[in-house]
Amino acid sequence: MKKIQLTLIQIDNYGPWTVTPAHRREADLQTLQAELFADLERLFSARGGLVFCTRFDNMLAISNGIDANTHRAIQESIHNRYPITLSMGIGAAETPYEAQVLATRALQRVGSSRSVERRGALVGECVIPPDEDWVQIAHVDVDHTSSMTDSRPIYDTHMLLQRVHLLLMEALSKHGALVFYTGGDNFMAPSNGVGEKELQAIIDDVQRELGVELKAGVGGGATAELAARLASQGLKEIREGRAIGRLVFKTG
Amino acid sequence: MKKIQLTLIQIDNYGPWTVTPAHRREADLQTLQAELFADLERLFSARGGLVFCTRFDNMLAISNGIDANTHRAIQESIHNRYPITLSMGIGAAETPYEAQVLATRALQRVGSSRSVERRGALVGECVIPPDEDWVQIAHVDVDHTSSMTDSRPIYDTHMLLQRVHLLLMEALSKHGALVFYTGGDNFMAPSNGVGEKELQAIIDDVQRELGVELKAGVGGGATAELAARLASQGLKEIREGRAIGRLVFKTG
Amino acid sequence: MKKIQLTLIQIDNYGPWTVTPAHRREADLQTLQAELFADLERLFSARGGLVFCTRFDNMLAISNGIDANTHRAIQESIHNRYPITLSMGIGAAETPYEAQVLATRALQRVGSSRSVERRGALVGECVIPPDEDWVQIAHVDVDHTSSMTDSRPIYDTHMLLQRVHLLLMEALSKHGALVFYTGGDNFMAPSNGVGEKELQAIIDDVQRELGVELKAGVGGGATAELAARLASQGLKEIREGRAIGRLVFKTG
Amino acid sequence: MKKIQLTLIQIDNYGPWTVTPAHRREADLQTLQAELFADLERLFSARGGLVFCTRFDNMLAISNGIDANTHRAIQESIHNRYPITLSMGIGAAETPYEAQVLATRALQRVGSSRSVERRGALVGECVIPPDEDWVQIAHVDVDHTSSMTDSRPIYDTHMLLQRVHLLLMEALSKHGALVFYTGGDNFMAPSNGVGEKELQAIIDDVQRELGVELKAGVGGGATAELAARLASQGLKEIREGRAIGRLVFKTG
Repeated sequence: MKKIQLTLIQIDNYGPWTVTPAHRREADLQTLQAELFADLERLFSARGGLVFCTRFDNMLAISNGIDANTHRAIQESIHNRYPITLSMGIGAAETPYEAQVLATRALQRVGSSRSVERRGALVGECVIPPDEDWVQIAHVDVDHTSSMTDSRPIYDTHMLLQRVHLLLMEALSKHGALVFYTGGDNFMAPSNGVGEKELQAIIDDVQRELGVELKAGVGGGATAELAARLASQGLKEIREGRAIGRLVFKTG
Repeated sequence: MKKIQLTLIQIDNYGPWTVTPAHRREADLQTLQAELFADLERLFSARGGLVFCTRFDNMLAISNGIDANTHRAIQESIHNRYPITLSMGIGAAETPYEAQVLATRALQRVGSSRSVERRGALVGECVIPPDEDWVQIAHVDVDHTSSMTDSRPIYDTHMLLQRVHLLLMEALSKHGALVFYTGGDNFMAPSNGVGEKELQAIIDDVQRELGVELKAGVGGGATAELAARLASQGLKEIREGRAIGRLVFKTG
Repeated sequence: MKKIQLTLIQIDNYGPWTVTPAHRREADLQTLQAELFADLERLFSARGGLVFCTRFDNMLAISNGIDANTHRAIQESIHNRYPITLSMGIGAAETPYEAQVLATRALQRVGSSRSVERRGALVGECVIPPDEDWVQIAHVDVDHTSSMTDSRPIYDTHMLLQRVHLLLMEALSKHGALVFYTGGDNFMAPSNGVGEKELQAIIDDVQRELGVELKAGVGGGATAELAARLASQGLKEIREGRAIGRLVFKTG
Repeated sequence: MKKIQLTLIQIDNYGPWTVTPAHRREADLQTLQAELFADLERLFSARGGLVFCTRFDNMLAISNGIDANTHRAIQESIHNRYPITLSMGIGAAETPYEAQVLATRALQRVGSSRSVERRGALVGECVIPPDEDWVQIAHVDVDHTSSMTDSRPIYDTHMLLQRVHLLLMEALSKHGALVFYTGGDNFMAPSNGVGEKELQAIIDDVQRELGVELKAGVGGGATAELAARLASQGLKEIREGRAIGRLVFKTG
């Protein structure tokens, strides 16, 4: 039974830290959060994983192929270089939604996000046996955003993209899939088990509701890196007119 | 007439660059975008400004007190260290919404976001005369998110926060204000001219619609740094029970 | 009386921290040190200063024009984002050597580099009155290193450059000047008060001793940034054959 | 026959780039160089390697266990995020000195460091067969530097450490070993084949010449990470008085 593995990365007791002794400078917090995300992206992607910035204080990573020891090494590297610590919960399941439920629960069981005792916890289960790893990612983008960017106020385009984001979140979660905003007009949806028909229906719904056209390359493989690469290739084929329709599936 | 000054920071011709010659590795793009944002945050905040990550390929900064020459120095520093260039449009107006309209238009007039000729453009107008600078920021957060984080699946909390985000965007934009997600359960709203009554009504609406309670510290001052600091202090007073109600205004 | 202002930046109690509880991973320490230096370079240079990596756990910055409050803001930004704290001593004097003596003594008076109590100290004196700021920097480079790099083992060239470094350190310190290795075949020498004759004699000595030819652009101005820019321009004039000799002085 | 594998990492055509069109801002170059080193440290160390900053425009990495494809992935990640490209030469030999000779020659054969055509070259030979990997690292530090730091001018201590560095370079290179300054009072010496007697003689020489006492932990293993960890453990044993003498060898 093929599974996706997700890691919930949570900064320990972050809220209280940001206001101790006084509220830390907002610009420093923004810089810290972005640097931390960038570093985790480097550390997970060096092993074939992919991290999404999500809430910044809570991040989700696709971590198929990355075992508990490697998670521990990643935690250690962060603890050596940052003023905060990270706890991690790992979950593996047939759907991304279920995997993040398991990852969250594993972490919740060992203490609160605001506990002063829980520091650097690592809990949960990797994919077992390891050759059951499977990741499907849909790389979705919005058509004609550059002409919007070139004609409308930037905040309007930003708001439109947030609407697309929320609509995609709601529609995909019904199928057990997640979706993350990755900047520009791009979204990445871990979506094991979601087929062409369902995805096409979601794309059609967004067009009906918001009047914007989406296209999606969907990649499947043993790691996030491979799935993401294939998804992007699929998207490129559509963009270059080498595909029929707005949806291309590729498996590696 | 007091004005807020916003800078639209746009990566030149970024979309095409990300897929030339093939789609660049997604993890590298995520790292690049986060590092670029973190660097711009450092560069603007060293001069009292504040940058929001927005779309990552298009960022908005509150830049009161930062003149054209300093913008140019910031561009140069990025061009010396990144594989991409940045164009910037500056706008100053009584409301943040109008300021970003002016910033966007100034930039649109000198070329497309996908132009290969437009590289490192700097256009638009700073606040004139300079002592007319004024920034109001509302720092909004959501109550009881840590108990949600500790009990619900992380993606559900993430989705709820995105709903709050979109609702705030829609409500505030009617008053000429903007709002940016700054991670965790935090939002920052450049909101010159929006008063206590309007803000309270928006907070009440969100509670009615989504069932979550918000609180907001609102700071006003000549720079983003000062306004943000005062806003966070206001929020702290509410948190510590030193304020009446869920809304505190402070001016520096 | 024109003075150069130097800041000694010292990581508090760093040695013990690196081995607590066990020796931290060497790669993490190297990354931490380089990131810290890069961040300090950004923070000081945003205000016209220039930092040299020196020993990494102890760095020297030319800080003319940067007052005590700004030093404090720089410390705060680092403390918000790193697992370590920094103490700083400021010294101002007619020669760089004397300035670092004063900076060091100021810091030594408030506690040991290995004290667990001294955290984030800021001591010493800025240039008074402020318009007495003066920085002279000689930007020295070695001729024909690219042909060495292209023909000899890289470690041999590296060793030769270390010999040049040490010889320059010894020769310049006799004149109250300092010199820092800035990578490649480049050295930067804060050298207030050192004239053309002395510098030419030092260049000649290095050639006699090590058989390598040096050239130097020397810049003078109210800030490190201006002095460094003029020094590099001087070097460029020599490189392009627009100067007589191997030494060009420029004042801004 | 056990071999150490070294990678010479060279920024392509860096010198000319730094002065095109004018000399780029020194602070930006310093930041770029430090960030690039920090990133390479992360990328190599995620695979068990270790990078030394060396000349910054030319770095040396111990890369045992890292194959050509992984080198290519590291290059690609840098090219996606920096304005410069890197060429790499790999060399494997019984001694570190010989390994860097081979790495350098491999790179020199495919073009000059100032060539505009050579971009992102990857040449040379990894350890064959792979199970012949061996790395010996001596982690050397200087006794009583904290009391020097607390009593002498910082530049004097800096100069003394540079003298130690040069003396170690000269002494170790006679035995085919290299040594890199890693900040503070620390040096790391890739030193396959150098035994206890030779190292003790070198330590004694430095003490005789410069009056400073050194101690060294020496680690041996299949990767740089393992060797460095064992070396640091050895050093810790000496520091804590759990070893006889100033030199401890450990093999993993």
